[in-house]
Amino acid sequence: MAAGALERALGDIVGARDVLRGADVCAPFEHDWTGRFGARARCVVRPADTAQVAAVLRACRAARVAVVPQGGNTGLVGGGVPRGGEVVLSLRRMAALGEVDATTGQLDVGAGVTLAALQAAARAAGWAAGVDLAARDGATVGGMVATDAGGHQALRHGTVRARVAGLEAVLADGSVVDRRSGLMKDNAGYDLPALLVGSEGTLGVVTHVRWRLVPALDARVTALVGLASLEEAAALLGVLRRRLPSLESAEFVLEPGLRLVLEHLRLPPPSPVPAPVRVLVECAAAHDPTDELAAALAAAGARDVVVGVDRPDRERLWRLREAHAEAIAAQGVPLKIDVGVPLGRLAEFAAAVPGLVAACEPSAQAILFGHLGDGNVHVNVVGADPADERIDEAVLRLAASLGGTVSAEHGVGVAKARWLALARSDADLAAMRAVKAALDPAGILNPGVVLET
Amino acid sequence: MAAGALERALGDIVGARDVLRGADVCAPFEHDWTGRFGARARCVVRPADTAQVAAVLRACRAARVAVVPQGGNTGLVGGGVPRGGEVVLSLRRMAALGEVDATTGQLDVGAGVTLAALQAAARAAGWAAGVDLAARDGATVGGMVATDAGGHQALRHGTVRARVAGLEAVLADGSVVDRRSGLMKDNAGYDLPALLVGSEGTLGVVTHVRWRLVPALDARVTALVGLASLEEAAALLGVLRRRLPSLESAEFVLEPGLRLVLEHLRLPPPSPVPAPVRVLVECAAAHDPTDELAAALAAAGARDVVVGVDRPDRERLWRLREAHAEAIAAQGVPLKIDVGVPLGRLAEFAAAVPGLVAACEPSAQAILFGHLGDGNVHVNVVGADPADERIDEAVLRLAASLGGTVSAEHGVGVAKARWLALARSDADLAAMRAVKAALDPAGILNPGVVLET
Repeated sequence: MAAGALERALGDIVGARDVLRGADVCAPFEHDWTGRFGARARCVVRPADTAQVAAVLRACRAARVAVVPQGGNTGLVGGGVPRGGEVVLSLRRMAALGEVDATTGQLDVGAGVTLAALQAAARAAGWAAGVDLAARDGATVGGMVATDAGGHQALRHGTVRARVAGLEAVLADGSVVDRRSGLMKDNAGYDLPALLVGSEGTLGVVTHVRWRLVPALDARVTALVGLASLEEAAALLGVLRRRLPSLESAEFVLEPGLRLVLEHLRLPPPSPVPAPVRVLVECAAAHDPTDELAAALAAAGARDVVVGVDRPDRERLWRLREAHAEAIAAQGVPLKIDVGVPLGRLAEFAAAVPGLVAACEPSAQAILFGHLGDGNVHVNVVGADPADERIDEAVLRLAASLGGTVSAEHGVGVAKARWLALARSDADLAAMRAVKAALDPAGILNPGVVLET
Repeated sequence: MAAGALERALGDIVGARDVLRGADVCAPFEHDWTGRFGARARCVVRPADTAQVAAVLRACRAARVAVVPQGGNTGLVGGGVPRGGEVVLSLRRMAALGEVDATTGQLDVGAGVTLAALQAAARAAGWAAGVDLAARDGATVGGMVATDAGGHQALRHGTVRARVAGLEAVLADGSVVDRRSGLMKDNAGYDLPALLVGSEGTLGVVTHVRWRLVPALDARVTALVGLASLEEAAALLGVLRRRLPSLESAEFVLEPGLRLVLEHLRLPPPSPVPAPVRVLVECAAAHDPTDELAAALAAAGARDVVVGVDRPDRERLWRLREAHAEAIAAQGVPLKIDVGVPLGRLAEFAAAVPGLVAACEPSAQAILFGHLGDGNVHVNVVGADPADERIDEAVLRLAASLGGTVSAEHGVGVAKARWLALARSDADLAAMRAVKAALDPAGILNPGVVLET
């Protein structure tokens, strides 16, 4: 197709005003917020509804032009920004929120709705979204479903996958799969929604989600537990998980990260007892869960425990975990590596990382923290060159060698496509490629993401 | 391949003793327990491990002979018995149970382990399986995963899909996909396990499952609530779901079915107040949930409530729901139709079924009961010819026309393959066929199940 012909066709579909072309107007869609990934797009197209998304995909397929679906552009692995010359398909205009169905606790959510907007709608109806993560103000439901996002409530509620009671998606050929009946039991044929969740826009474009809310639980208690090791942390979690159905979060921080946070926020230590590992636990229930948490912690032998019941006290404890990102960023642009490690190997992983990092870059420092409940570790490296991939490689190889994964909650994107084989066998990769070829034979959907081209 | 050559090859793989050929020894594997489905198999092969399963699939593929994977043969839709001439691949020998990992509450379960054995192992380790269904003594984990089985705890814990922290499966080409790291966050590439769950042995053979247990909760309360209509039942459920994180089951029975049960068991009515609809609710928690259930029922305006706290009282209430199958069977062989209907349309569905059944067979009677929490209705028809498919068709069309599904928890099998298009669009079916062709190009895995050949 001649230059400009595709853009005219796209303009006929979405309206010329929603086909963006100039470098200035396209810039916010072309690079991720870290600046690490991105390139010029051919254009940015902003459909208003599912029919427009379908028509855009048909037009791009006819023109043999690749499409990069994009939500809130809060990703960290380059999965939602162009590699050069693609059409960026921004779903942000599809931001309609349906009514909450009071009998099922479900609602229809457009792909472009932000997590914060979904959380507010849920709260207004007396429910909760069941997912929370730091990028809530920008991250969209479509992007969260496309990456199977996690966050700190996955321990209780599962990843975003568990919130998807159904979805609507446009496949590469422009056909629309609509599975939004919201039935929690529906095993009529293959679960295509389950396949699309986490496929990062390479098998279809998620346009609407039937979101399953969770009960809003306002009786909460938070505790920060000082421990001697990550082995102790894993053992503690085992006891809490078995005894506390109200357990919602279990995060971990290590001494170097916490020290950075305390310095950054000019705060005293949370407890007079020094501890190399601290686990932040939160329980939420319809009744006050303080006593059951205290009993479970006592049964697990925890001694250094700081408890917060009122909201300000709970928020003070959470701040020590959540401020890691800003305290680290204050040291310079960090290298961020998201991995999963089986709980039983977490201590081994954490012990080995500093040496691996130092071997690549002696002046760099590794700060580890993350979601204990899921074995999800965020490795942050300060003082290293983000363009130097040796540290990424060493950390990913270590995680994989311990039975872990190269991506826990951020996704593969383009950043980790070359490392996917560390966590997946040849048989697995061959099956993924077969599925990709079956559903997107022309290879127009987000090429280079998940699977190398 | 000459007759007998495949059998010899299979004997070399699993040992001649585990290749069954005579009509007498094969019979238990060739027909389902209702006698409605089945035919002669070419032979029955019983592998002992994953490598043998892989070798069997390679041999069958080379010989172009279709394979029917089979677990406990408790299915109701003909998905696990031969249509004529296939090799039945029985997974029952793969019945090893691993140790429970105390930090994650997970264990490795062979495909041939029965649900009852899994439940016992979970209990012994201080956990619970998170799934329960009537066929627990025969149904195997492999079959339950292959059908994404449901049961009466799905309201709280989800269907079997939610219990799968990972799995190992053999694909049609004999390659093995092993995803048993058990990481609850692992979005490295497509979630092939999620695609295999519910694919009924047509995309791969599940050999091992990394099962995610749930906390064992012994503080329980059960209530039977009399209501004027299914609309009231749906509204009640909405309130309970939002207020009670301890809610584990919400089943419904209707007056005709309950009357049959009371006559069959020679019991008096559970409450002096007549009611066309009764909802059986169970809460389970670490603390006594009686007060919170009572408060929620009061808030929902429920008046006719019978509560059971001690085990015998709870079991008496459950018996009224569970004895439906035997009370119905005492009337003659019933036609059993498993559908899902959105909660908001359930009353409409229940009101229309008797008329549809009578139009097909005036002397037949429809008894409806099921899992209110999931909109999962079991339609049982007594007094009709099970070979007459007009009633199936009428009921499935009705469910689909109300936005429901033709299979909620039993699966598609061969019984409903021709009705799948009632619940799935052309785009959906085309995508399913593309996935099937991609992963099983020779079409040897359970042909005719899910998708018509």
